[in-house]
Amino acid sequence: MKKLLFKILFALLLLSVPAWAADPLPSWNNTAPKQAVIKLVKEVTDPHSPGFVPKADRIATFDNDGTLWAEQPVYFQYFYILDAVKALSPQHPEWQTQEPFASLLKGDLETALAGGNEAAATLMLATHTGFTPEQFKQSVQNWIAKARHPQSNRLFTEMVYQPMRELIAYLQANGFKTYIVSGGDIDFMRPWTQKAYSIPPEQVIGTSVKMKFELNNGKAELVGAPEINFVSDVEGKPIGINQYIGKRPTAAFGNSDGDLPMMQWTASGKGPHLCLYVHHTDGVREWAYDRRSPVGRLDKGLDEALAQGWTIASMKDDWKVIFPAGK
Amino acid sequence: MKKLLFKILFALLLLSVPAWAADPLPSWNNTAPKQAVIKLVKEVTDPHSPGFVPKADRIATFDNDGTLWAEQPVYFQYFYILDAVKALSPQHPEWQTQEPFASLLKGDLETALAGGNEAAATLMLATHTGFTPEQFKQSVQNWIAKARHPQSNRLFTEMVYQPMRELIAYLQANGFKTYIVSGGDIDFMRPWTQKAYSIPPEQVIGTSVKMKFELNNGKAELVGAPEINFVSDVEGKPIGINQYIGKRPTAAFGNSDGDLPMMQWTASGKGPHLCLYVHHTDGVREWAYDRRSPVGRLDKGLDEALAQGWTIASMKDDWKVIFPAGK
Repeated sequence: MKKLLFKILFALLLLSVPAWAADPLPSWNNTAPKQAVIKLVKEVTDPHSPGFVPKADRIATFDNDGTLWAEQPVYFQYFYILDAVKALSPQHPEWQTQEPFASLLKGDLETALAGGNEAAATLMLATHTGFTPEQFKQSVQNWIAKARHPQSNRLFTEMVYQPMRELIAYLQANGFKTYIVSGGDIDFMRPWTQKAYSIPPEQVIGTSVKMKFELNNGKAELVGAPEINFVSDVEGKPIGINQYIGKRPTAAFGNSDGDLPMMQWTASGKGPHLCLYVHHTDGVREWAYDRRSPVGRLDKGLDEALAQGWTIASMKDDWKVIFPAGK
Repeated sequence: MKKLLFKILFALLLLSVPAWAADPLPSWNNTAPKQAVIKLVKEVTDPHSPGFVPKADRIATFDNDGTLWAEQPVYFQYFYILDAVKALSPQHPEWQTQEPFASLLKGDLETALAGGNEAAATLMLATHTGFTPEQFKQSVQNWIAKARHPQSNRLFTEMVYQPMRELIAYLQANGFKTYIVSGGDIDFMRPWTQKAYSIPPEQVIGTSVKMKFELNNGKAELVGAPEINFVSDVEGKPIGINQYIGKRPTAAFGNSDGDLPMMQWTASGKGPHLCLYVHHTDGVREWAYDRRSPVGRLDKGLDEALAQGWTIASMKDDWKVIFPAGK
């Protein structure tokens, strides 16, 4: 009996050692970005530190495309839209000649997206209009389980960044509530972010379509309307954070100019903060791009990060691995 | 040593007994509404029940005014607006003659609000425009700490419903994530819902004003714009739930026709659900009103609740106490 009790106590002792005690960020080189993250966490979690932040106020916000998973040659959501538009096209013969659908149906994503934000919104709305949230979720779940990246031939969820998954887990273990704040379609992300990043649907903020409430024979449904509700990009990022969370982040992570206002708002808060840009510098293991890329352009943001002394994580120099092992 | 180990084990055993094991809802009479709540919780938490709901999907949504705290003679937020408009009036001499401000400044809330939703929106915007979220929060915190109800002379946060606080705690203890979904101003609620109900700011959905992103000498701020962003009432309730949470509730609680679409959407979901209307039947301990009240009208909702067999909690018959003890 005594032996058993000792075993139980020993097991309890093991449980009290945090899981990350060894190295919370094993995929990060021991360079400045990793040190900056650990320094912030020590500062905000130490009740004796002047920079202590109560647990309820430890908010970390992450851009998704290019920050948590890859985004080349186009935001992955467009591969979903391409397949969804193809599947819907028999009910829309007009799409064969109408842009941006015509180019998309020919597989020419570049021309389809040449119309910029307006073309992107038109395509996003086409996949939502008339569908309930549950129907859309099912469609994304079916797609994300099977669709593969045209160049890597991996599942898209295998193209998440392992160092960023460790960072999310490390922040969560230290009492941070972690949110995705993406310019992408909120309904495209929510079905898979829990599995990919341990971030639940209610902690995903993104661009959304307007929904209509409908009652059919007593059954209530929400149905997608052909109108954009909210654009969660650039200034929309801090606005969305305030709207959904009602708190200013302590830490913000991004990779493009679209993340700059989120970084600036984070940096302008009281108390300690961390603004970290993921810099796509690894043309061998991933893609190398910044100031001139049409996708995930990092130009003004890079200038501001350098001027303000924000943290810049070079994928080539600061990350030991990019993607999860064995993928 | 052995004695100590037994003490530790005994303490662990005590910890494993849920805090609510005695009676989770002591302020509720043992009538149908209490039984319906307990039945739902047993059903959704039992992994062997056909109605089992995974923890991540246990969402409960609560209206605020009239469901979690009192709402007579007018929604309490108007007492805040009255005081805020008074404080701002020296900078707005035009308000002395302009409605709805003129009536409000004379203390005539009834005439000020006679203009309906438009007047209400005008007043709400007046207290937000030009203010940052932090400034507005500070203003509400200062007010809610001191302002008193004109009839009861209690602090407004002492006019919360004790049975509903127990209900929130009981659902939380059983893995539910609890949200407020109110037609009221989101920024008016967020500063005090944690203390009053154990519901954090990020789990409050409400009517909101548009915010603008501004950069002044490198400092980034959000500032209230004179425009309504989202109306979280009637159809706006299920729409807001979908937008903020991305899940359909398992349980919904309300007290007025404004909650009906939220109830209908909840009832139309798959799996078990509970729709509960708080019915204001106690003219002695609180206020008695329903079909003809301009504030918190319950008319169509009552018909639907009766027709669908939803749960109706009569404050007079089903609640042992209304307000927290000693208040």
